[in-house]
Amino acid sequence: MLLSVLQANASVLDVDANLRTIDDAARRASRAGAGLLLTPELFPVGYAPLRLHAELDPETLPGIRERLANIARTHGIGLVYSLPAAAEHTYDDDAEPASGGGRWHISATLLDASGKEILSYNKVHLFGAEEHKAFVGAQAPPAVVDFNGLRTSMLICYDVEFPEAVRAAATRGAELLLVPTALSAGFDNVPQVLIRARALESQLNVAYANHCGHEDVYNFLGGSVVAGPDGSLLAAAGDGASLLFAEVGTDSVNAARAEVPYLQERRPELYAEWDR
Amino acid sequence: MLLSVLQANASVLDVDANLRTIDDAARRASRAGAGLLLTPELFPVGYAPLRLHAELDPETLPGIRERLANIARTHGIGLVYSLPAAAEHTYDDDAEPASGGGRWHISATLLDASGKEILSYNKVHLFGAEEHKAFVGAQAPPAVVDFNGLRTSMLICYDVEFPEAVRAAATRGAELLLVPTALSAGFDNVPQVLIRARALESQLNVAYANHCGHEDVYNFLGGSVVAGPDGSLLAAAGDGASLLFAEVGTDSVNAARAEVPYLQERRPELYAEWDR
Repeated sequence: MLLSVLQANASVLDVDANLRTIDDAARRASRAGAGLLLTPELFPVGYAPLRLHAELDPETLPGIRERLANIARTHGIGLVYSLPAAAEHTYDDDAEPASGGGRWHISATLLDASGKEILSYNKVHLFGAEEHKAFVGAQAPPAVVDFNGLRTSMLICYDVEFPEAVRAAATRGAELLLVPTALSAGFDNVPQVLIRARALESQLNVAYANHCGHEDVYNFLGGSVVAGPDGSLLAAAGDGASLLFAEVGTDSVNAARAEVPYLQERRPELYAEWDR
Repeated sequence: MLLSVLQANASVLDVDANLRTIDDAARRASRAGAGLLLTPELFPVGYAPLRLHAELDPETLPGIRERLANIARTHGIGLVYSLPAAAEHTYDDDAEPASGGGRWHISATLLDASGKEILSYNKVHLFGAEEHKAFVGAQAPPAVVDFNGLRTSMLICYDVEFPEAVRAAATRGAELLLVPTALSAGFDNVPQVLIRARALESQLNVAYANHCGHEDVYNFLGGSVVAGPDGSLLAAAGDGASLLFAEVGTDSVNAARAEVPYLQERRPELYAEWDR
Protein backbone atom coordinates (compact mmCIF):
# COMPACT_ATOMS: atom_id res chain seq x y z
CA MET A 1 0.00 0.00 0.00
CA LEU A 2 1.15 3.52 -0.79
CA LEU A 3 0.93 5.53 2.44
CA SER A 4 0.86 9.31 2.61
CA VAL A 5 1.81 11.42 5.62
CA LEU A 6 0.75 15.03 6.04
CA GLN A 7 3.12 17.45 7.75
CA ALA A 8 1.54 20.88 8.04
CA ASN A 9 0.84 23.88 10.23
CA ALA A 10 -2.62 24.05 11.80
CA SER A 11 -4.50 27.17 12.90
CA VAL A 12 -5.69 26.84 16.49
CA LEU A 13 -9.50 26.56 16.57
CA ASP A 14 -9.82 27.45 12.89
CA VAL A 15 -11.44 24.16 11.95
CA ASP A 16 -12.42 25.30 8.46
CA ALA A 17 -8.84 26.16 7.56
CA ASN A 18 -7.48 22.92 9.01
CA LEU A 19 -10.05 20.77 7.24
CA ARG A 20 -9.20 22.53 3.98
CA THR A 21 -5.56 21.52 4.53
CA ILE A 22 -6.59 17.91 5.16
CA ASP A 23 -8.99 17.91 2.20
CA ASP A 24 -6.28 19.24 -0.10
CA ALA A 25 -3.78 16.63 1.13
CA ALA A 26 -6.37 13.85 0.75
CA ARG A 27 -7.05 14.91 -2.83
CA ARG A 28 -3.35 14.94 -3.73
CA ALA A 29 -2.64 11.69 -1.89
CA SER A 30 -5.55 9.94 -3.55
CA ARG A 31 -4.52 11.13 -7.01
CA ALA A 32 -1.01 9.79 -6.32
CA GLY A 33 -2.51 6.39 -5.58
CA ALA A 34 -2.19 6.39 -1.79
CA GLY A 35 -4.55 4.17 0.17
CA LEU A 36 -4.24 6.13 3.40
CA LEU A 37 -3.50 9.64 4.64
CA LEU A 38 -2.04 10.06 8.15
CA THR A 39 -2.45 13.51 9.74
CA PRO A 40 -0.86 15.03 12.89
CA GLU A 41 -2.12 15.00 16.49
CA LEU A 42 -5.19 17.21 17.08
CA PHE A 43 -4.69 18.74 13.63
CA PRO A 44 -8.35 19.58 12.87
CA VAL A 45 -8.53 21.85 15.94
CA GLY A 46 -4.84 22.77 16.27
CA TYR A 47 -2.43 21.64 18.99
CA ALA A 48 -3.19 23.89 21.98
CA PRO A 49 -4.21 21.84 25.03
CA LEU A 50 -5.13 24.69 27.35
CA ARG A 51 -7.01 26.67 24.70
CA LEU A 52 -8.88 23.57 23.57
CA HIS A 53 -9.77 22.85 27.19
CA ALA A 54 -11.04 26.40 27.69
CA GLU A 55 -12.57 27.21 24.33
CA LEU A 56 -13.50 24.10 22.34
CA ASP A 57 -17.22 23.35 22.44
CA PRO A 58 -17.54 19.55 22.62
CA GLU A 59 -20.86 19.74 20.78
CA THR A 60 -18.94 20.74 17.65
CA LEU A 61 -16.96 17.47 17.60
CA PRO A 62 -19.53 15.18 15.94
CA GLY A 63 -19.86 17.67 13.09
CA ILE A 64 -16.08 17.82 12.62
CA ARG A 65 -15.93 14.04 12.55
CA GLU A 66 -18.65 13.96 9.93
CA ARG A 67 -16.77 16.41 7.73
CA LEU A 68 -13.61 14.29 8.07
CA ALA A 69 -15.56 11.16 7.08
CA ASN A 70 -16.80 13.09 4.08
CA ILE A 71 -13.24 13.98 3.06
CA ALA A 72 -12.25 10.28 3.15
CA ARG A 73 -15.38 9.31 1.20
CA THR A 74 -15.03 12.07 -1.37
CA HIS A 75 -11.44 11.20 -2.23
CA GLY A 76 -11.82 7.45 -1.70
CA ILE A 77 -8.88 7.28 0.71
CA GLY A 78 -8.36 5.94 4.22
CA LEU A 79 -7.75 8.70 6.79
CA VAL A 80 -6.26 8.91 10.27
CA TYR A 81 -7.22 12.01 12.20
CA SER A 82 -6.79 13.01 15.85
CA LEU A 83 -9.32 14.92 17.97
CA PRO A 84 -10.33 15.32 21.59
CA ALA A 85 -12.83 12.61 22.57
CA ALA A 86 -15.07 12.43 25.63
CA ALA A 87 -13.43 10.37 28.39
CA GLU A 88 -15.65 7.79 30.02
CA HIS A 89 -15.69 7.86 33.79
CA THR A 90 -13.96 4.68 34.86
CA TYR A 91 -13.02 5.89 38.32
CA ASP A 92 -15.62 3.84 40.14
CA ASP A 93 -14.75 0.40 38.84
CA ASP A 94 -11.02 0.90 38.49
CA ALA A 95 -8.47 0.38 41.22
CA GLU A 96 -6.43 3.22 39.77
CA PRO A 97 -8.02 6.37 38.35
CA ALA A 98 -6.96 7.51 34.91
CA SER A 99 -4.21 10.13 35.04
CA GLY A 100 -4.80 13.73 34.07
CA GLY A 101 -7.23 16.47 34.94
CA GLY A 102 -9.32 16.90 31.82
CA ARG A 103 -12.64 15.57 30.60
CA TRP A 104 -11.24 14.43 27.27
CA HIS A 105 -8.84 11.91 25.90
CA ILE A 106 -6.61 12.72 22.96
CA SER A 107 -7.90 10.25 20.40
CA ALA A 108 -6.98 8.96 16.97
CA THR A 109 -9.46 7.53 14.48
CA LEU A 110 -8.87 5.40 11.38
CA LEU A 111 -11.48 5.73 8.64
CA ASP A 112 -11.62 3.47 5.62
CA ALA A 113 -12.06 4.90 2.14
CA SER A 114 -15.83 4.94 2.56
CA GLY A 115 -15.49 7.16 5.64
CA LYS A 116 -16.38 4.36 8.03
CA GLU A 117 -14.61 4.35 11.41
CA ILE A 118 -12.70 1.06 11.72
CA LEU A 119 -10.29 1.74 14.61
CA SER A 120 -9.88 4.23 17.42
CA TYR A 121 -7.23 4.77 20.08
CA ASN A 122 -6.93 7.04 23.12
CA LYS A 123 -3.50 8.37 24.14
CA VAL A 124 -2.12 6.67 27.26
CA HIS A 125 1.06 8.72 27.90
CA LEU A 126 0.23 12.42 28.20
CA PHE A 127 3.17 14.80 27.69
CA GLY A 128 3.85 17.86 29.81
CA ALA A 129 1.86 19.97 32.25
CA GLU A 130 -0.56 21.40 29.67
CA GLU A 131 -1.72 18.02 28.40
CA HIS A 132 -2.14 16.79 31.96
CA LYS A 133 -4.30 19.80 32.74
CA ALA A 134 -6.44 19.54 29.64
CA PHE A 135 -6.75 15.81 29.04
CA VAL A 136 -7.12 12.41 30.70
CA GLY A 137 -4.64 9.60 30.00
CA ALA A 138 -6.26 6.38 28.82
CA GLN A 139 -5.38 2.87 29.95
CA ALA A 140 -6.29 0.54 27.07
CA PRO A 141 -3.58 -0.91 24.82
CA PRO A 142 -3.57 -0.13 21.10
CA ALA A 143 -5.91 -2.40 19.15
CA VAL A 144 -5.18 -3.81 15.70
CA VAL A 145 -7.39 -3.97 12.61
CA ASP A 146 -6.97 -5.20 9.04
CA PHE A 147 -6.62 -2.30 6.63
CA ASN A 148 -5.81 -2.79 2.95
CA GLY A 149 -4.08 -6.09 3.71
CA LEU A 150 -1.99 -4.75 6.60
CA ARG A 151 -2.56 -5.38 10.30
CA THR A 152 -2.76 -1.76 11.43
CA SER A 153 -2.57 -0.05 14.80
CA MET A 154 -2.23 3.47 16.21
CA LEU A 155 -0.45 5.32 19.00
CA ILE A 156 -0.22 9.05 19.63
CA CYS A 157 2.92 11.18 20.02
CA TYR A 158 4.63 10.57 23.42
CA ASP A 159 3.20 7.02 23.52
CA VAL A 160 5.57 5.88 20.79
CA GLU A 161 8.62 7.05 22.73
CA PHE A 162 7.88 4.19 25.16
CA PRO A 163 8.99 0.87 23.64
CA GLU A 164 6.40 -0.91 25.77
CA ALA A 165 3.55 0.80 23.90
CA VAL A 166 4.85 -0.31 20.50
CA ARG A 167 5.39 -3.83 21.85
CA ALA A 168 1.70 -3.89 22.80
CA ALA A 169 0.77 -3.16 19.18
CA ALA A 170 3.33 -5.60 17.78
CA THR A 171 2.39 -8.48 20.04
CA ARG A 172 -1.23 -7.94 18.92
CA GLY A 173 -0.05 -8.45 15.34
CA ALA A 174 0.55 -4.92 14.06
CA GLU A 175 2.51 -4.61 10.81
CA LEU A 176 1.81 -0.89 10.36
CA LEU A 177 1.76 1.60 13.21
CA LEU A 178 0.27 5.04 12.53
CA VAL A 179 1.30 7.84 14.87
CA PRO A 180 -0.17 11.35 14.81
CA THR A 181 2.21 13.57 16.78
CA ALA A 182 2.93 17.12 17.93
CA LEU A 183 6.68 17.17 18.58
CA SER A 184 8.51 20.38 19.43
CA ALA A 185 11.62 21.64 17.69
CA GLY A 186 14.84 20.39 19.25
CA PHE A 187 13.73 16.78 19.65
CA ASP A 188 15.20 15.56 16.35
CA ASN A 189 16.36 12.31 17.96
CA VAL A 190 12.75 11.21 18.42
CA PRO A 191 12.02 10.72 14.68
CA GLN A 192 15.63 10.09 13.68
CA VAL A 193 16.54 7.57 16.39
CA LEU A 194 13.54 6.45 18.47
CA ILE A 195 11.04 5.95 15.63
CA ARG A 196 13.58 3.97 13.60
CA ALA A 197 14.36 1.88 16.70
CA ARG A 198 10.66 1.22 17.35
CA ALA A 199 10.27 -0.02 13.77
CA LEU A 200 13.41 -2.16 13.99
CA GLU A 201 12.96 -3.68 17.46
CA SER A 202 9.33 -4.67 16.83
CA GLN A 203 9.80 -5.17 13.07
CA LEU A 204 6.89 -3.19 11.73
CA ASN A 205 6.33 -0.08 9.62
CA VAL A 206 5.97 3.11 11.65
CA ALA A 207 4.60 6.36 10.21
CA TYR A 208 4.95 9.51 12.31
CA ALA A 209 3.09 12.67 11.19
CA ASN A 210 4.06 15.95 12.84
CA HIS A 211 3.03 19.58 12.79
CA CYS A 212 5.43 22.23 11.52
CA GLY A 213 5.72 25.92 12.33
CA HIS A 214 4.12 27.68 15.30
CA GLU A 215 0.76 26.95 16.90
CA ASP A 216 -0.31 28.58 20.18
CA VAL A 217 2.89 28.74 22.30
CA TYR A 218 4.50 25.78 20.50
CA ASN A 219 7.20 25.62 17.84
CA PHE A 220 7.07 22.28 16.05
CA LEU A 221 9.94 20.29 14.60
CA GLY A 222 8.39 18.96 11.45
CA GLY A 223 10.68 16.02 10.66
CA SER A 224 7.88 13.52 10.00
CA VAL A 225 9.14 10.08 9.01
CA VAL A 226 8.16 6.64 7.82
CA ALA A 227 10.46 3.86 9.04
CA GLY A 228 10.56 0.28 7.74
CA PRO A 229 10.79 -2.92 9.79
CA ASP A 230 14.59 -3.06 9.32
CA GLY A 231 14.95 0.39 10.89
CA SER A 232 15.56 2.17 7.59
CA LEU A 233 13.97 5.51 6.78
CA LEU A 234 11.46 5.07 3.95
CA ALA A 235 10.62 8.79 3.89
CA ALA A 236 11.55 11.87 5.91
CA ALA A 237 10.33 15.47 5.84
CA GLY A 238 12.25 18.67 6.54
CA ASP A 239 10.89 21.43 8.75
CA GLY A 240 8.25 22.82 6.37
CA ALA A 241 4.86 21.67 5.09
CA SER A 242 5.15 18.37 3.25
CA LEU A 243 3.21 15.41 1.93
CA LEU A 244 5.35 12.28 2.28
CA PHE A 245 4.79 9.02 0.43
CA ALA A 246 6.11 5.57 1.27
CA GLU A 247 5.27 2.06 0.10
CA VAL A 248 4.51 -0.14 3.13
CA GLY A 249 3.67 -3.84 3.05
CA THR A 250 3.94 -7.17 4.79
CA ASP A 251 6.88 -8.61 2.78
CA SER A 252 9.47 -6.47 4.55
CA VAL A 253 7.83 -7.25 7.90
CA ASN A 254 7.98 -10.98 7.26
CA ALA A 255 11.57 -10.77 5.99
CA ALA A 256 12.74 -8.86 9.08
CA ARG A 257 10.96 -11.22 11.46
CA ALA A 258 12.42 -14.26 9.67
CA GLU A 259 15.96 -12.87 9.90
CA VAL A 260 15.94 -11.98 13.62
CA PRO A 261 12.92 -13.30 15.55
CA TYR A 262 12.73 -10.52 18.16
CA LEU A 263 9.04 -11.00 18.89
CA GLN A 264 9.44 -14.74 19.36
CA GLU A 265 12.60 -14.48 21.44
CA ARG A 266 11.49 -11.84 23.89
CA ARG A 267 10.79 -13.15 27.41
CA PRO A 268 7.57 -11.45 28.62
CA GLU A 269 7.30 -13.70 31.69
CA LEU A 270 10.75 -12.57 32.83
CA TYR A 271 10.09 -8.90 32.02
CA ALA A 272 6.90 -8.91 34.08
CA GLU A 273 8.81 -10.37 37.01
CA TRP A 274 11.76 -7.96 36.55
CA ASP A 275 9.41 -4.95 36.35
CA ARG A 276 7.54 -5.68 39.58
CA MET B 1 34.82 9.11 34.30
CA LEU B 2 36.79 8.53 31.13
CA LEU B 3 35.63 5.21 29.68
CA SER B 4 37.58 3.18 27.13
CA VAL B 5 36.13 0.59 24.77
CA LEU B 6 38.23 -2.06 23.06
CA GLN B 7 37.28 -3.14 19.55
CA ALA B 8 39.59 -5.90 18.35
CA ASN B 9 39.92 -9.25 16.64
CA ALA B 10 40.34 -12.28 18.93
CA SER B 11 42.03 -15.59 18.08
CA VAL B 12 39.76 -18.51 18.89
CA LEU B 13 41.17 -20.46 21.84
CA ASP B 14 44.45 -18.56 21.76
CA VAL B 15 44.05 -17.16 25.25
CA ASP B 16 47.60 -15.86 25.46
CA ALA B 17 47.21 -13.74 22.34
CA ASN B 18 43.82 -12.40 23.44
CA LEU B 19 45.04 -11.51 26.93
CA ARG B 20 48.00 -9.71 25.36
CA THR B 21 45.50 -7.63 23.35
CA ILE B 22 43.53 -6.81 26.52
CA ASP B 23 46.71 -6.07 28.48
CA ASP B 24 47.95 -3.72 25.79
CA ALA B 25 44.58 -1.92 25.66
CA ALA B 26 44.45 -1.67 29.46
CA ARG B 27 47.91 -0.12 29.50
CA ARG B 28 47.01 2.46 26.86
CA ALA B 29 43.62 3.20 28.42
CA SER B 30 45.11 3.64 31.86
CA ARG B 31 47.83 5.95 30.56
CA ALA B 32 45.13 8.03 28.87
CA GLY B 33 43.38 8.41 32.23
CA ALA B 34 40.50 5.99 31.68
CA GLY B 35 38.88 4.48 34.77
CA LEU B 36 37.45 1.48 32.95
CA LEU B 37 38.14 -0.71 29.93
CA LEU B 38 35.19 -2.52 28.31
CA THR B 39 36.09 -5.54 26.13
CA PRO B 40 33.94 -7.59 23.68
CA GLU B 41 31.83 -10.72 24.33
CA LEU B 42 33.89 -13.86 25.02
CA PHE B 43 37.01 -11.99 23.89
CA PRO B 44 39.58 -13.85 26.06
CA VAL B 45 38.66 -17.17 24.38
CA GLY B 46 37.34 -15.87 21.05
CA TYR B 47 33.74 -15.88 19.86
CA ALA B 48 33.11 -19.44 18.62
CA PRO B 49 30.21 -21.07 20.53
CA LEU B 50 30.46 -24.57 19.07
CA ARG B 51 34.26 -24.74 19.30
CA LEU B 52 34.20 -23.44 22.87
CA HIS B 53 31.56 -26.03 23.71
CA ALA B 54 33.66 -28.82 22.19
CA GLU B 55 37.19 -27.76 23.03
CA LEU B 56 37.35 -25.35 25.97
CA ASP B 57 38.45 -27.02 29.19
CA PRO B 58 36.39 -25.42 31.97
CA GLU B 59 39.23 -26.04 34.39
CA THR B 60 41.24 -23.36 32.59
CA LEU B 61 38.66 -20.67 33.36
CA PRO B 62 39.72 -19.77 36.92
CA GLY B 63 43.27 -19.23 35.71
CA ILE B 64 42.10 -16.96 32.89
CA ARG B 65 40.03 -14.96 35.37
CA GLU B 66 43.07 -14.58 37.61
CA ARG B 67 45.18 -13.28 34.74
CA LEU B 68 42.46 -10.77 33.85
CA ALA B 69 42.31 -9.60 37.47
CA ASN B 70 46.05 -9.17 37.31
CA ILE B 71 45.74 -6.99 34.19
CA ALA B 72 43.27 -4.70 35.99
CA ARG B 73 45.50 -4.56 39.07
CA THR B 74 48.71 -3.99 37.14
CA HIS B 75 47.33 -1.04 35.18
CA GLY B 76 45.09 0.24 37.97
CA ILE B 77 41.99 0.26 35.76
CA GLY B 78 38.51 -1.20 36.02
CA LEU B 79 37.88 -3.99 33.50
CA VAL B 80 34.82 -5.67 31.98
CA TYR B 81 35.50 -9.04 30.42
CA SER B 82 33.20 -11.79 29.14
CA LEU B 83 33.78 -15.55 29.51
CA PRO B 84 31.79 -18.76 29.68
CA ALA B 85 30.67 -19.43 33.26
CA ALA B 86 29.32 -22.64 34.75
CA ALA B 87 25.50 -22.65 34.74
CA GLU B 88 23.88 -23.72 37.98
CA HIS B 89 21.26 -26.40 37.63
CA THR B 90 17.98 -24.70 38.37
CA TYR B 91 15.80 -27.18 36.49
CA ASP B 92 14.45 -28.87 39.60
CA ASP B 93 13.10 -25.87 41.44
CA ASP B 94 12.05 -23.78 38.44
CA ALA B 95 8.69 -24.02 36.71
CA GLU B 96 10.43 -23.24 33.44
CA PRO B 97 13.86 -24.64 32.63
CA ALA B 98 16.52 -22.23 31.43
CA SER B 99 16.65 -22.10 27.63
CA GLY B 100 19.55 -23.54 25.65
CA GLY B 101 21.44 -26.79 25.48
CA GLY B 102 24.81 -25.98 27.03
CA ARG B 103 26.36 -26.27 30.45
CA TRP B 104 27.58 -22.70 30.49
CA HIS B 105 26.18 -19.22 30.56
CA ILE B 106 27.81 -16.41 28.62
CA SER B 107 28.87 -14.13 31.46
CA ALA B 108 30.28 -10.65 31.94
CA THR B 109 32.37 -9.57 34.93
CA LEU B 110 33.21 -6.09 36.18
CA LEU B 111 36.49 -5.79 38.09
CA ASP B 112 37.53 -2.69 39.97
CA ALA B 113 41.01 -1.24 39.58
CA SER B 114 42.34 -3.57 42.28
CA GLY B 115 41.15 -6.60 40.27
CA LYS B 116 38.28 -7.34 42.64
CA GLU B 117 35.06 -8.67 41.08
CA ILE B 118 32.25 -6.23 41.91
CA LEU B 119 29.49 -7.25 39.46
CA SER B 120 28.63 -10.19 37.24
CA TYR B 121 25.86 -10.84 34.73
CA ASN B 122 24.74 -13.88 32.72
CA LYS B 123 23.26 -13.40 29.22
CA VAL B 124 19.49 -13.94 29.11
CA HIS B 125 18.79 -13.68 25.37
CA LEU B 126 20.92 -16.17 23.43
CA PHE B 127 21.34 -15.43 19.72
CA GLY B 128 21.16 -18.02 16.97
CA ALA B 129 21.38 -21.79 16.78
CA GLU B 130 25.06 -22.04 17.79
CA GLU B 131 24.64 -20.12 21.04
CA HIS B 132 21.55 -22.17 21.89
CA LYS B 133 23.54 -25.36 21.35
CA ALA B 134 26.56 -24.27 23.33
CA PHE B 135 25.12 -22.17 26.15
CA VAL B 136 22.22 -21.81 28.59
CA GLY B 137 20.16 -18.62 28.74
CA ALA B 138 19.97 -17.08 32.21
CA GLN B 139 16.89 -15.63 33.87
CA ALA B 140 18.10 -13.01 36.35
CA PRO B 141 17.79 -9.30 35.54
CA PRO B 142 20.92 -7.13 35.31
CA ALA B 143 22.09 -5.92 38.72
CA VAL B 144 23.53 -2.48 39.41
CA VAL B 145 26.63 -1.49 41.38
CA ASP B 146 28.38 1.78 42.20
CA PHE B 147 31.57 2.16 40.17
CA ASN B 148 33.64 5.37 40.19
CA GLY B 149 30.56 7.40 41.11
CA LEU B 150 28.29 5.90 38.45
CA ARG B 151 25.51 3.38 39.00
CA THR B 152 26.73 0.71 36.60
CA SER B 153 25.11 -2.35 35.02
CA MET B 154 25.85 -4.86 32.27
CA LEU B 155 24.05 -6.73 29.49
CA ILE B 156 25.53 -8.90 26.74
CA CYS B 157 25.06 -8.52 22.97
CA TYR B 158 21.54 -9.62 21.87
CA ASP B 159 20.14 -8.69 25.31
CA VAL B 160 20.50 -4.99 24.59
CA GLU B 161 18.43 -5.25 21.41
CA PHE B 162 15.44 -5.88 23.69
CA PRO B 163 14.29 -2.60 25.26
CA GLU B 164 12.87 -4.56 28.20
CA ALA B 165 16.36 -5.67 29.26
CA VAL B 166 17.68 -2.11 29.34
CA ARG B 167 14.58 -1.00 31.23
CA ALA B 168 15.41 -3.60 33.87
CA ALA B 169 18.84 -2.00 34.35
CA ALA B 170 17.45 1.56 34.25
CA THR B 171 14.65 0.92 36.74
CA ARG B 172 17.30 -0.53 39.08
CA GLY B 173 19.11 2.80 38.85
CA ALA B 174 21.71 2.24 36.12
CA GLU B 175 23.40 5.37 34.74
CA LEU B 176 26.04 3.47 32.77
CA LEU B 177 25.34 0.25 30.89
CA LEU B 178 28.32 -1.80 29.68
CA VAL B 179 27.68 -4.23 26.84
CA PRO B 180 30.25 -6.70 25.53
CA THR B 181 29.00 -7.88 22.13
CA ALA B 182 29.78 -10.03 19.10
CA LEU B 183 27.74 -8.50 16.28
CA SER B 184 28.08 -9.68 12.70
CA ALA B 185 28.71 -7.45 9.70
CA GLY B 186 25.52 -6.17 8.08
CA PHE B 187 23.76 -5.23 11.31
CA ASP B 188 24.88 -1.58 11.34
CA ASN B 189 21.46 -0.44 12.58
CA VAL B 190 22.06 -2.15 15.91
CA PRO B 191 24.81 0.24 17.08
CA GLN B 192 23.69 3.18 14.96
CA VAL B 193 19.96 3.07 15.80
CA LEU B 194 19.11 0.61 18.57
CA ILE B 195 21.97 1.45 20.96
CA ARG B 196 21.31 5.18 20.61
CA ALA B 197 17.60 4.52 21.22
CA ARG B 198 18.33 2.41 24.31
CA ALA B 199 20.44 5.24 25.73
CA LEU B 200 17.80 7.86 24.89
CA GLU B 201 14.65 6.02 25.98
CA SER B 202 16.11 4.97 29.35
CA GLN B 203 18.37 8.03 29.64
CA LEU B 204 21.65 6.39 30.52
CA ASN B 205 25.09 6.00 28.98
CA VAL B 206 25.50 2.83 26.91
CA ALA B 207 28.87 1.46 25.82
CA TYR B 208 28.90 -1.35 23.25
CA ALA B 209 32.21 -3.15 22.55
CA ASN B 210 32.35 -5.38 19.47
CA HIS B 211 34.80 -7.70 17.77
CA CYS B 212 36.13 -6.86 14.31
CA GLY B 213 37.41 -9.09 11.53
CA HIS B 214 36.89 -12.85 11.25
CA GLU B 215 36.76 -15.38 14.09
CA ASP B 216 35.72 -19.00 13.50
CA VAL B 217 32.90 -18.81 10.89
CA TYR B 218 31.93 -15.26 11.86
CA ASN B 219 32.63 -11.90 10.23
CA PHE B 220 32.17 -9.09 12.72
CA LEU B 221 30.93 -5.58 12.11
CA GLY B 222 33.16 -3.58 14.39
CA GLY B 223 31.18 -0.37 14.78
CA SER B 224 31.50 -0.19 18.57
CA VAL B 225 29.82 2.88 20.07
CA VAL B 226 29.26 4.88 23.22
CA ALA B 227 25.88 6.66 23.34
CA GLY B 228 24.86 9.36 25.80
CA PRO B 229 21.54 9.69 27.66
CA ASP B 230 20.20 12.11 25.01
CA GLY B 231 20.76 9.53 22.27
CA SER B 232 23.87 11.21 20.88
CA LEU B 233 26.94 9.25 19.84
CA LEU B 234 29.82 10.06 22.20
CA ALA B 235 32.24 7.81 20.29
CA ALA B 236 32.03 5.40 17.35
CA ALA B 237 34.53 3.00 15.79
CA GLY B 238 34.93 1.97 12.17
CA ASP B 239 35.39 -1.64 11.09
CA GLY B 240 38.97 -2.12 12.26
CA ALA B 241 40.73 -2.49 15.62
CA SER B 242 40.18 0.55 17.79
CA LEU B 243 40.37 1.88 21.33
CA LEU B 244 37.51 4.34 21.87
CA PHE B 245 37.34 6.92 24.64
CA ALA B 246 34.30 8.77 25.96
CA GLU B 247 33.60 10.85 29.06
CA VAL B 248 30.55 9.47 30.87
CA GLY B 249 28.96 10.90 33.99
CA THR B 250 25.81 11.51 35.93
CA ASP B 251 25.25 15.16 34.92
CA SER B 252 24.02 14.30 31.44
CA VAL B 253 21.85 11.52 32.90
CA ASN B 254 20.24 13.89 35.37
CA ALA B 255 19.75 16.58 32.73
CA ALA B 256 18.04 14.17 30.33
CA ARG B 257 15.79 12.76 33.04
CA ALA B 258 14.84 16.26 34.20
CA GLU B 259 13.91 17.34 30.66
CA VAL B 260 11.72 14.34 29.75
CA PRO B 261 10.89 12.05 32.69
CA TYR B 262 10.56 8.79 30.74
CA LEU B 263 11.35 6.56 33.69
CA GLN B 264 8.81 8.31 35.92
CA GLU B 265 6.10 8.45 33.27
CA ARG B 266 6.19 4.87 32.10
CA ARG B 267 3.24 2.74 33.21
CA PRO B 268 4.63 -0.65 34.29
CA GLU B 269 1.30 -1.76 35.76
CA LEU B 270 -0.39 -1.24 32.39
CA TYR B 271 2.45 -2.86 30.43
CA ALA B 272 2.31 -5.98 32.60
CA GLU B 273 -1.43 -6.22 31.96
CA TRP B 274 -1.04 -5.52 28.23
CA ASP B 275 1.72 -8.13 27.88
CA ARG B 276 -0.21 -10.97 29.48
